[in-house]
Amino acid sequence: MRILGIDPGYAQTGWGVVETSGQRNRPVSFGVIKTAASMADNERIFFIASSIGKIAEEQKVDICGMEDIFFTKNISSAIPVAKVIGAAVHQLYLQHIEVRLYSPPTIKSAVTGYGGADKKQVQEMVKILLGFEKIPKPDHAADALAVAICLSVFDATQKRIQGK
Amino acid sequence: MRILGIDPGYAQTGWGVVETSGQRNRPVSFGVIKTAASMADNERIFFIASSIGKIAEEQKVDICGMEDIFFTKNISSAIPVAKVIGAAVHQLYLQHIEVRLYSPPTIKSAVTGYGGADKKQVQEMVKILLGFEKIPKPDHAADALAVAICLSVFDATQKRIQGK
Repeated sequence: MRILGIDPGYAQTGWGVVETSGQRNRPVSFGVIKTAASMADNERIFFIASSIGKIAEEQKVDICGMEDIFFTKNISSAIPVAKVIGAAVHQLYLQHIEVRLYSPPTIKSAVTGYGGADKKQVQEMVKILLGFEKIPKPDHAADALAVAICLSVFDATQKRIQGK
Repeated sequence: MRILGIDPGYAQTGWGVVETSGQRNRPVSFGVIKTAASMADNERIFFIASSIGKIAEEQKVDICGMEDIFFTKNISSAIPVAKVIGAAVHQLYLQHIEVRLYSPPTIKSAVTGYGGADKKQVQEMVKILLGFEKIPKPDHAADALAVAICLSVFDATQKRIQGK
């Protein structure tokens, strides 16, 4: 199964593709989608969601995991990211690709075993679990790979429970 | 010019189509898109944005005005609505339909002349400006028609300034 992980953001959206056998994960590709602050808001949303759709198609992904907005004190930065999430979910559903949303503590917990882990610990585990020599860069791409690993963990557990 | 007005919401999204000559507005059609709380979150987002896309196509609209999230104390209700806005913007851009977002006070101000107007006053002005005998129902549809009127007001002003 091929998983697309997304760390959604307005200026930078991280993405990472992982191939999973259920027991082992292998990195396929990763990167970031950038939009300039000079672009109109709606154009940025459209560009990011369209780019995610293209990556999903090119990388032939089966499913997508996306970091959700969980809680924030800063509503003015949360609203644009929520718009990006909505647009990306819609684009992937148009392509018949299921999207599963995970809160940041859930992702941290799935990757490191501890929901209060810091960013560096998560990235270190991404490096180890995917067999990289160094932490993948930029940070948003490493975060996106963490979301893909998170989906693989939950999916494998679910399949074990269901006896698949 | 045919304008689609949208009052985005998770349970109910209001929509209204107005034909404008620049000086006069005529109502064309209006209604609400409903989703059940039993539906999965992503399915609701996809259903609402897809329905807006279908309405835009069926009603042959040229442009869309949408109520934006301006400020709220309740972030847990703002986030799902922001996702719907992002998905709807993306769907309409896929159809090459421009979307203009307006804050609630801007809409109230354009329709009633006063940004602090209450819901009832806005709906009363929608009735008068579009020549209805009664306030259009349900409320979300009337609110969507207010957004369409708001776009017509700003667009007419802009064209006058530009001497078009």
